[in-house]
Amino acid sequence: MVLTRRFVLDTSLFVNPHAREKFGKTPPLAVKSFIKMISKLDAEFYMPSLIFMELKNFIGEKISSEFELHIKKRAPNIYALYLPAAVLHDFIEDVRGRMNKGLRLAEEYAQDNKPENNVKLQKLREKYRDAVRAGLLDSKEDFELVMLAKELEATLVSSDEGVLKFANKVGCEWLNGSKMFAMLKKMKK
Amino acid sequence: MVLTRRFVLDTSLFVNPHAREKFGKTPPLAVKSFIKMISKLDAEFYMPSLIFMELKNFIGEKISSEFELHIKKRAPNIYALYLPAAVLHDFIEDVRGRMNKGLRLAEEYAQDNKPENNVKLQKLREKYRDAVRAGLLDSKEDFELVMLAKELEATLVSSDEGVLKFANKVGCEWLNGSKMFAMLKKMKK
Repeated sequence: MVLTRRFVLDTSLFVNPHAREKFGKTPPLAVKSFIKMISKLDAEFYMPSLIFMELKNFIGEKISSEFELHIKKRAPNIYALYLPAAVLHDFIEDVRGRMNKGLRLAEEYAQDNKPENNVKLQKLREKYRDAVRAGLLDSKEDFELVMLAKELEATLVSSDEGVLKFANKVGCEWLNGSKMFAMLKKMKK
Repeated sequence: MVLTRRFVLDTSLFVNPHAREKFGKTPPLAVKSFIKMISKLDAEFYMPSLIFMELKNFIGEKISSEFELHIKKRAPNIYALYLPAAVLHDFIEDVRGRMNKGLRLAEEYAQDNKPENNVKLQKLREKYRDAVRAGLLDSKEDFELVMLAKELEATLVSSDEGVLKFANKVGCEWLNGSKMFAMLKKMKK
């Protein structure tokens, strides 16, 4: 028996310009053409409720209301899912290094006494994002994506580096969002 | 059958002045009197190897070499221990909030163009510690303490707020380091 293929979708599939490229020019257009493409496919598409709410902000009430009929919306059962302690061990070490970098950066900018504060702030924010946040699974929304895919033994589709890295670490099947258009094309055959 | 009581010891028991108070004035003296107190007790004392190495820096080669004969030194088996996903879910949210606070703090200090940089840096470091680190389980050493206590069903003894909070969250028995002297006294009777 072959089970119907399942996918868990991240907002980034429709919001990241590179990922949605072939679906449409804007997030709403991308979702519209996505709905069209999957309507006759033998596959299931899931979104954690929090991620669906996030996407709604990008595509508006009307299209999200239609999209809701084509996807399954649910949270992972985080009280029944278990992870090896080694995963948290590595996560804590990673976070520790990032917090150290954050402080080094703050120190560097605190010592810069030139008065063009707006220029300084913009640079600081960029550097902070790169040093502290990039590549980290840093929100409960992102964590729910991976856990839902794990619970459902589904393929996680995302363009977020932190999400994909974490999914890979916990043995979750994943596909970069930029490959999703080609995947659906292939499945249609 | 009553099992021999087991304890997992944190460095803070001997390094935190409030916790070691009744054991001794300095970390080496505290460890010495601790060894004396436990020598005839029917109890087992464990330390994760990383924590033992940490303590060595405070008490020196000679005393740590004696202490090693009185405690059991081992790491938790983090590949065989499992934690509910909810634990990591909460941890990620906590870290996210702290990273936001770290950036706000960095921004605040980047805009302060008064040139007394040393005063500024000291304040920044204090505030960063309070906002970003206090109360967080932020090192693999700390994580190993909790996991070892969990694996052994032992009582975790620590004076670190982040360690105790996390131990409590995962259902691990814990005792504040400042109560350990009285506990040993009571066990001697």
